[in-house]
Amino acid sequence: MPNPLENVDTGNVPYVIVSSDTHAGLPVADYRDYLESSVHAEFDEWLLERHEHRRISEENNGEYIAQWEGDNAEGLRGAYDPEVRDKELDADGISGEVIFADGDAVTGMESPPFGAGLSAGQITDPKLAFAGARAHNRWLIEFCATSPVRRAGVALVPIVHDIDESVREIELLAGKPGIKGVMVPTMWHDKPSYGSTHYDRVWAACAEAGLVVHTHSGEADFESYNDNVAQYMLEVPFWTHRILWQLMLSGKFDKFPGLKYAVVECGSYWLGDLLWKADVNFGASGKVKKMSSRTKGLIKRLPSEYVGTNVFVGASTMSREEIRRRHVNGIDALMWGTDYPHPEGSWPHTVERLETDFREVSIEDTRLLLGLNAVECYDLDLDGLTEVAARVGPTPERLNQDPDLRTADDAIRTARWWFDDYGMDWKG
Amino acid sequence: MPNPLENVDTGNVPYVIVSSDTHAGLPVADYRDYLESSVHAEFDEWLLERHEHRRISEENNGEYIAQWEGDNAEGLRGAYDPEVRDKELDADGISGEVIFADGDAVTGMESPPFGAGLSAGQITDPKLAFAGARAHNRWLIEFCATSPVRRAGVALVPIVHDIDESVREIELLAGKPGIKGVMVPTMWHDKPSYGSTHYDRVWAACAEAGLVVHTHSGEADFESYNDNVAQYMLEVPFWTHRILWQLMLSGKFDKFPGLKYAVVECGSYWLGDLLWKADVNFGASGKVKKMSSRTKGLIKRLPSEYVGTNVFVGASTMSREEIRRRHVNGIDALMWGTDYPHPEGSWPHTVERLETDFREVSIEDTRLLLGLNAVECYDLDLDGLTEVAARVGPTPERLNQDPDLRTADDAIRTARWWFDDYGMDWKG
Repeated sequence: MPNPLENVDTGNVPYVIVSSDTHAGLPVADYRDYLESSVHAEFDEWLLERHEHRRISEENNGEYIAQWEGDNAEGLRGAYDPEVRDKELDADGISGEVIFADGDAVTGMESPPFGAGLSAGQITDPKLAFAGARAHNRWLIEFCATSPVRRAGVALVPIVHDIDESVREIELLAGKPGIKGVMVPTMWHDKPSYGSTHYDRVWAACAEAGLVVHTHSGEADFESYNDNVAQYMLEVPFWTHRILWQLMLSGKFDKFPGLKYAVVECGSYWLGDLLWKADVNFGASGKVKKMSSRTKGLIKRLPSEYVGTNVFVGASTMSREEIRRRHVNGIDALMWGTDYPHPEGSWPHTVERLETDFREVSIEDTRLLLGLNAVECYDLDLDGLTEVAARVGPTPERLNQDPDLRTADDAIRTARWWFDDYGMDWKG
Repeated sequence: MPNPLENVDTGNVPYVIVSSDTHAGLPVADYRDYLESSVHAEFDEWLLERHEHRRISEENNGEYIAQWEGDNAEGLRGAYDPEVRDKELDADGISGEVIFADGDAVTGMESPPFGAGLSAGQITDPKLAFAGARAHNRWLIEFCATSPVRRAGVALVPIVHDIDESVREIELLAGKPGIKGVMVPTMWHDKPSYGSTHYDRVWAACAEAGLVVHTHSGEADFESYNDNVAQYMLEVPFWTHRILWQLMLSGKFDKFPGLKYAVVECGSYWLGDLLWKADVNFGASGKVKKMSSRTKGLIKRLPSEYVGTNVFVGASTMSREEIRRRHVNGIDALMWGTDYPHPEGSWPHTVERLETDFREVSIEDTRLLLGLNAVECYDLDLDGLTEVAARVGPTPERLNQDPDLRTADDAIRTARWWFDDYGMDWKG
C-alpha cells in the first residue's frame, strides 16, 4: 500500500477543503420543468402532499423552523442558486463540494419529485422512482456545470427497481462535467440484496463511468421504531453502511476493480471495529473450522485493504473522537463534510469548528481529511481547487496547528492493533 | 451509582467463575417424552429433517465433525448428562453456568423440537413454537434441579407468537429452582417490535418473576446474505443486541424497574460506542433542535446508567481488546462465558485461555468479569458457588496476575471519555 501521507504539503498554504456532504435541490414545484409530462398528474398530487407536510411541520415545530429559516434566509437560497451557493462556500472556507439531493432537511420542500432523493426507498412504483431521479439528474447536470471545478454532483439511480433502466441512466451520466457519483437506495427491501449478482451490471457501469456509488444516511427500518426517533438515530448508521459489507465481502471490488463506494453522513466510529472483525475472521487463518467457507474465496485482499482504494467515508462533521481514531478507521479514506445547508452540519461556522477540532492534528493528516481524500475518491481537479483555496481556504496557522507535528509513516499500521494482537501480516 | 469494585476480594482466593454462556439439550429424539402428544406427528417429520440435515453436514464437513466429536466424545455427553457435565465444568475451572438451549452447535442434533431454541425465529406456527419451547423447558427444569447452585437455566418463550401464552409460561417458570431467565426470539419479523407496548405484559411478568430476558446470537437477516457466511458473521451482533436499544430507549427499564436484559455471545465491542452516541444524543442537551422529541421523555437516566443495573452482557470468550475496553463497556455488566460445549468457545481449555488473557487485569476486575457480575445479574447463590470454587476455581496466581495491581475508583468515569468531551455531568 502506498503511503498516503507522501508528498502532502506540510507548509502553511491554505487548506483545499472539499465538503464531502452538501445538499442541493430545487423548490419542489420548480422540478416540473425537468419532469417527463407523463407523470405530471402524479406530480401535482405529490406537491399537495408536500405542502400538507410543510403545514404539519410548522404546526409541530413552527418556532424552530421560523428561526432557522429566518436566521439563514439568504444562505439557504444557495440550495438552488449557484451564485448564492458560491458565496456561502467561500465564507465557510470550502473550495469544493460533493452534492447530494434534498436541500431542505427541515421540512423537505427541496426534495426531488416523489422523494426520489434521500427517501427513494419509500417509492414503490418504479416509474415514479425513475422519473423523479431523472428530473433531479437533469437539473443537477445544469447546476454542476455552473462550476464543475468546485461541484461534484451525485446523481440518483434507484437501482432496486430496474437494472436495464439503471444502466442506461448511468451511461447517460458518464462524462457529464461535474457529475461524479450516483446515490443508490439504502435498503433493498424485497429485492435481491446488493451482494447478489443481480446488480453486477450496475456496478460494472459505475466502474466504467468512473462514478462513485453512494449510500447516504436517511432510510432505516422505520416500522420498528414506534415513532421513537432515538431508536432511529442509533440504528441509521447500520442501515447506511450495510451495503459496504455487501459489496466488499461478496467480492465486488475484486470483480470490478475500478468500483468505488462511499458511505455518507453516518459517521466513521463503527468502521475500525468492523475492519478488525472482518480482517481477523475473513482474512487471517480461521479459528472456527465449522465456518471455514466464509467468503468463498471471493475476496482477494484483507477487508481493511479496500479502505482508501475502493471504500471511502463521507464522515461529514466528524466528532473529536472520530478525528482521534482517524488512523485506525483510515486516514486515506475519511472525508470531512459540512452538510450544507442542513442544520445538523457545521455551516455557516465551519472554520470555527475546524479551529477547535483540528488543533492537535498534524497538517498532513488534516489535508487528507479535509480535502485530498475527496480529490482522490472523486478524481477532482486539484489545480483548480487549489486556486479557489488560495482565496477562501483557512491556513494551518488559522486552525491553531503545530507546524512541527508530523504523522509517523507507520501510523495506520500501529493504529490497527489487531495485526499485532492476532499475529497477522501487514502488507503495507 | 455504587462502586462495583467495593468489597471485592483482592486476595489469592480462587475465582468464582460463572460461565454466562453454556448450552445443553437432549439428543433430538429424546425430547419426545417432554412433548405434548398433540404434536407428535409434526415431531416425527421434524426428526426426519434433522437426520437429513445431519447427513448433509457430514457430507460437506465430515472430517471436521468426526474429529471434533471424536476428540471430545465424553465431554460432549455433558450436553444432557449432569454427572458428565459437572466433571467437565470442574476440569474447566467453572463453578456456575447460565444454560441456553442447543447443545450441539455443529450439526444441530440437540436442538429443542422444531428448532425452538436458537432457531425459534424461523418457526412460523405458534403452536409448534410453544410446544417445542415447553418441551425444552420441562426438561431444563429437571436438568437444573440436579444442581441448582451451579446451574442457571434460561428457558424458552417465543413471545412474538402469543402474549397470553407467554405470560402463562413465565408464571409457570417463576420460582423453579435453577431457572433464572428466558430467551426470546431475536427478531420480531412481521410482529410488533420489542419497543412497542405490545409486549409490556411479558416484561412485567419477567420482572415480577425475577427472570432475566435474553437474546442469544444465532438469528439474523439470512435472506440478505446470499449464502455468504462472512456477511452473516459481521452482522449477527447487530441483530442480537438490537433489542437492548428497543427496550432501553422506549423506557421499559423505567416502566419495569426490576426488568433485566442480557445479550449473549455477540461480543461487547459495539457497546461503548453506542453508549457514547446514546448518552450524548438522548441524555445530554441536544444540539439538533429538529429532533428534540427523541425518546419522548420515556427514559429517566442516561443510557449508560442502565448498564450494570438492568443491562448485562454475556460476552462469552472475550477478545483481548474487549478485555482492554472493560471499563468503557461496563466493568459491572460484562460476563465471561465458555460457550461449552460449542467448538467456538474456550472449553476444554478455559483456564489456559484465562492465564494468557487476564495477565494484565486487576484481581478485582477479573472477579467481576469472571463471576460476580453474573452472580449479581442472576441473583445466584454466592456462598454455594464459593464452595464449588474452593475446589475447582483457578487462583489469581494461577492466572499470572500481579497481586498489587489495583483498579482506580473512577475507572468507569475515566474510560467513558464522552463525559469530558461533551462537558456532561457524571452522576457516579
